[in-house]
Amino acid sequence: MAEFTAIFLPGNSSVCVPEGTTLLAAAAAAGLLLQTPCGGQGRCGKCLARVEGGVDAPTSLERRVLGPDQLAQGWRLACQARVAGDVAVTVPESSLITEHRIMVEGVERELTVLPNITKVGLDLPAPSVEDPRADLNRVLDALSGHVRPPTRIASLRALPRVLRQSRFQITAVAADGELLALEPGDTSENAYGLAVDIGTTTVVAYLCHLPTGKSVAVASDLNSQAQYGDDVISRIRIASSGAEGLAALSGAVVTVINDLIERACHEAGVPEEAIYELSVVGNTCMSHLFLGVSPAGLGSLPFVQVFRSAQTVRAADLGIGVHPEALVYLVPNIGGFVGADTVGVILASELDRSDGLRVAVDIGTNGEIVVARQGELHAASTAAGPAFEGAKITQGMRAAHGAIESVHINDDVKCHVIGDVSPRGICGSGLVDAVAELVRVGIITETGRMLRRQEVTGLPEKVAERLVENERGVAFVLARPEESFGGEGVALTGRDVREMQLAKAAIYGGMELLLEELGAGPADIEQLLLAGAFGNYIRRESARAIGLIPALPAERIESIGNAAGVGARLVLCSTEERRRAEEIARRVRHVDLSERKGFYDRFADAMMLRPLPSLQ
Amino acid sequence: MAEFTAIFLPGNSSVCVPEGTTLLAAAAAAGLLLQTPCGGQGRCGKCLARVEGGVDAPTSLERRVLGPDQLAQGWRLACQARVAGDVAVTVPESSLITEHRIMVEGVERELTVLPNITKVGLDLPAPSVEDPRADLNRVLDALSGHVRPPTRIASLRALPRVLRQSRFQITAVAADGELLALEPGDTSENAYGLAVDIGTTTVVAYLCHLPTGKSVAVASDLNSQAQYGDDVISRIRIASSGAEGLAALSGAVVTVINDLIERACHEAGVPEEAIYELSVVGNTCMSHLFLGVSPAGLGSLPFVQVFRSAQTVRAADLGIGVHPEALVYLVPNIGGFVGADTVGVILASELDRSDGLRVAVDIGTNGEIVVARQGELHAASTAAGPAFEGAKITQGMRAAHGAIESVHINDDVKCHVIGDVSPRGICGSGLVDAVAELVRVGIITETGRMLRRQEVTGLPEKVAERLVENERGVAFVLARPEESFGGEGVALTGRDVREMQLAKAAIYGGMELLLEELGAGPADIEQLLLAGAFGNYIRRESARAIGLIPALPAERIESIGNAAGVGARLVLCSTEERRRAEEIARRVRHVDLSERKGFYDRFADAMMLRPLPSLQ
Repeated sequence: MAEFTAIFLPGNSSVCVPEGTTLLAAAAAAGLLLQTPCGGQGRCGKCLARVEGGVDAPTSLERRVLGPDQLAQGWRLACQARVAGDVAVTVPESSLITEHRIMVEGVERELTVLPNITKVGLDLPAPSVEDPRADLNRVLDALSGHVRPPTRIASLRALPRVLRQSRFQITAVAADGELLALEPGDTSENAYGLAVDIGTTTVVAYLCHLPTGKSVAVASDLNSQAQYGDDVISRIRIASSGAEGLAALSGAVVTVINDLIERACHEAGVPEEAIYELSVVGNTCMSHLFLGVSPAGLGSLPFVQVFRSAQTVRAADLGIGVHPEALVYLVPNIGGFVGADTVGVILASELDRSDGLRVAVDIGTNGEIVVARQGELHAASTAAGPAFEGAKITQGMRAAHGAIESVHINDDVKCHVIGDVSPRGICGSGLVDAVAELVRVGIITETGRMLRRQEVTGLPEKVAERLVENERGVAFVLARPEESFGGEGVALTGRDVREMQLAKAAIYGGMELLLEELGAGPADIEQLLLAGAFGNYIRRESARAIGLIPALPAERIESIGNAAGVGARLVLCSTEERRRAEEIARRVRHVDLSERKGFYDRFADAMMLRPLPSLQ
Repeated sequence: MAEFTAIFLPGNSSVCVPEGTTLLAAAAAAGLLLQTPCGGQGRCGKCLARVEGGVDAPTSLERRVLGPDQLAQGWRLACQARVAGDVAVTVPESSLITEHRIMVEGVERELTVLPNITKVGLDLPAPSVEDPRADLNRVLDALSGHVRPPTRIASLRALPRVLRQSRFQITAVAADGELLALEPGDTSENAYGLAVDIGTTTVVAYLCHLPTGKSVAVASDLNSQAQYGDDVISRIRIASSGAEGLAALSGAVVTVINDLIERACHEAGVPEEAIYELSVVGNTCMSHLFLGVSPAGLGSLPFVQVFRSAQTVRAADLGIGVHPEALVYLVPNIGGFVGADTVGVILASELDRSDGLRVAVDIGTNGEIVVARQGELHAASTAAGPAFEGAKITQGMRAAHGAIESVHINDDVKCHVIGDVSPRGICGSGLVDAVAELVRVGIITETGRMLRRQEVTGLPEKVAERLVENERGVAFVLARPEESFGGEGVALTGRDVREMQLAKAAIYGGMELLLEELGAGPADIEQLLLAGAFGNYIRRESARAIGLIPALPAERIESIGNAAGVGARLVLCSTEERRRAEEIARRVRHVDLSERKGFYDRFADAMMLRPLPSLQ
């Protein structure tokens, strides 16, 4: 059969289709979904398009719906007009499905809502001797050939009952162009999805109303995998020890997600069964554990993943308690430990569309860095994070009630504690602040050594007496025992400083190395994006003072919140963003820092606790 | 991106592909699978093709494998050469995968073996720092982009273990272009499929070796659904009574199939897990019950099916004990009760490619009729069969040991009994024989009445005394009590004759009506095909004498055995045949006989027990 090219304007997408294809089907093949409330039967007149070139003659239905003037101007019903030659088709915005635009918080990012899950209410004719079509054909015909039959036997089994119980007034649920389920009556507004960001430490879930793309509830909790180790390395070790370890870690995160689903649904008054899809981001290790796939290959060189591309699986197969036919879309990974969460950050911040030199740093338990310029993207991961989330720091803790989150030193030490309660530990931003202040007053040297009381001169007395020493070395008391929760005081040790120093050197050194791939240095960064909760809370002047981030002018630094989670919401609400995420995952070059010559030099240089790059 | 047309010769299939597509991928899109033992890496030289038109310049790999002469003649490696313009590609037979040709018994039918299930042995490079590809990418890359990632989580979970246990020497199992499973080592020859014909009364399973298409074992058994009623109508009633009835019928046929699998595998020495796919034919009701889908819509006008098109489901979801990832391909139905088995008959007999007027009659428990001429196909179903399978006949039985299968009347009655044992009943062919002989000697009138002894004259004494009478009417004793198994004798009653008369009238009348759709009559039939075991065993002269089949010259009548089962084997061993089956199901017009004016007139005329069409 002859094939012709159909070009769709204004987007300029083109497809090759066989003669006789409806413009509706051709548009779908080109990625454009047109409105068809009548089910593509030529009655509603919503799929208007203007054609130039090879189409067949208007049908009698079209002549009835469109006037002679409209027909003369080239207007046709896309569901009726068929390709008869090469053709150009202009599709007005009003003919396109779901043109809501939503604003996603955290980053300024608009998207056209076009979820993978679509629900269409159908009022079908009952079977008759004149129209004895099979039940499935009756449904699929009304969906105008957009949708393939269900591949799951349960949906087929339910079909005749649902159709007849509801007297053929049903709602078809489709995903990825496949019929997922049928529901009695018109339930098309009752469609929810869940965007999930699986962090090494924290899991966040956003419940979204799919037809509008609006977030209706957010829930978060600790990743209970933490009981098996704080960082990805220890979890990989346990998962690699055998099927039981893997099952335990996989089960832990599924349990957390099920709990978040229950809470978010309860808060929004939405039944769990109204969730038809989950979109999930996480680092590579989290992605593997979530699917129950062994991350053993990530445990040692050459850091091999089992899968890298996007995965679509059944929620039921993972034990997730939502609609029984619901899908899980796992955003693709980039490489090594740089996972889907980084794809989410790039998507949310549009780094893939940057002209100027832009850098994003996502400091969670892992630290991921992305540098971008003119569509060229490089990413790396550092095992930098735990220090900033409290791990490895003697009295470190997460940014929760009782955490010292900022520190000022004048004639004495003044700390701010989250929740305005007695302090019981120090969180990431407090740690950065404390170190920066202690460097400023001379208690910590630029090389990171915490001095003994007798080595420092000119300190105010109240500050000096906080410098203590015990069998484990020197420490600086931020909160005295009597001021603290539990009465043990809160102190920062010399070792804690070393831990932080290692973490920040990995991040800064890694960033320098990535920038070098673009022939640039830290000073050339036009915009530095700080993703993750940590990015929101650190005092930037402290971070700059100790060389955690480059000493850029303030206006070039921006916090973008949980950008990975925003990315998960974007792919949940838009198949366009999904395609873009997959494109990003393919395009970003993963750089394995430990394999790079020069990394350890840069790492050593970046250990210095002073503004970087050094002005030499 | 520019798109170009690639035409593949000698088949003349063409595809539209983006610039830069390899000829290998373009060929796959056109339905041609080329040999790539090296995994499409340009090393083995097996995917040779000769090109004219737009391709890029030969790669260095090609220059190494092919000589300058070959290159000058336009020979290229399809895995390396890329489309750069419209191009014509000639693919020699030696480059195509699995070019075995097999002969299928029953009908003379050749096919190119090209199963949906493909197994490819791969010897993959182990990961290294230079080549840290993800496991899944490593496998898919070696399959040259023919194959999509697995959609089932179990396959992904098994991936890293299988790869490493077998030191990256594995066999990839793919179906429908999707990666189904991986196995350690090279198991590519260990690939089996099962073709199943679910009859209302009998289930037959053919175990086939997929790489060669050869049948290695056959097993058959009664359809144990029969305990819930002999015919489809009673089974529909039970299945419609509630979920339990449906589950019982569905479970019954699955149990039978599992039993056949065990027997066939035992006979051939093949493990059940080596079966990767089942192809299944059956009438519409059997198809629905097999999938556990309610056939209630078939129970009354307008006889609505739940599904009509081909279905692919997981064997595990149906409880079938084969490879855990195995698929079930259910051949599409035509309409009403005319199901996948009739598609199988058409496929096996190539009725879809007939020029002359050809008719196929498949008499099982249902009787299906297909008429074909010049690609035009009409089909109908009659509830005719049970009489010929023993049901509704007082002493009817299946064609098993002890069944009277032929009857001759001279000065006495001579019966042949299957197995040469004492008779205990009468099967279909014996029934047709008995009626034909009794009509010939004047005991049964052309209108079907069995006369009383006193109404017949000139009978040999030994024949006359077999005409008996009791409270239920007249009967003709075929075997006296003392000759018979169990001592009750075997007799044919006047009512039995009426039952057979109804059945044969439905078949003959239905055939006449279908022929009329083509403007023809029974005398115009150029070839009459008798499918089903019954067609093999009836004496044709008897069938013609009583007007069960038209009185055509013997050379125009052919028995084709279990053609439905042959059809199931064809689609199991060839995706081409599968596409053709789907095309057939779309093309055949289903005629609902009961809805046709004129059917009852024809039915009444066809009741006459004499050669038909009547020579008037």
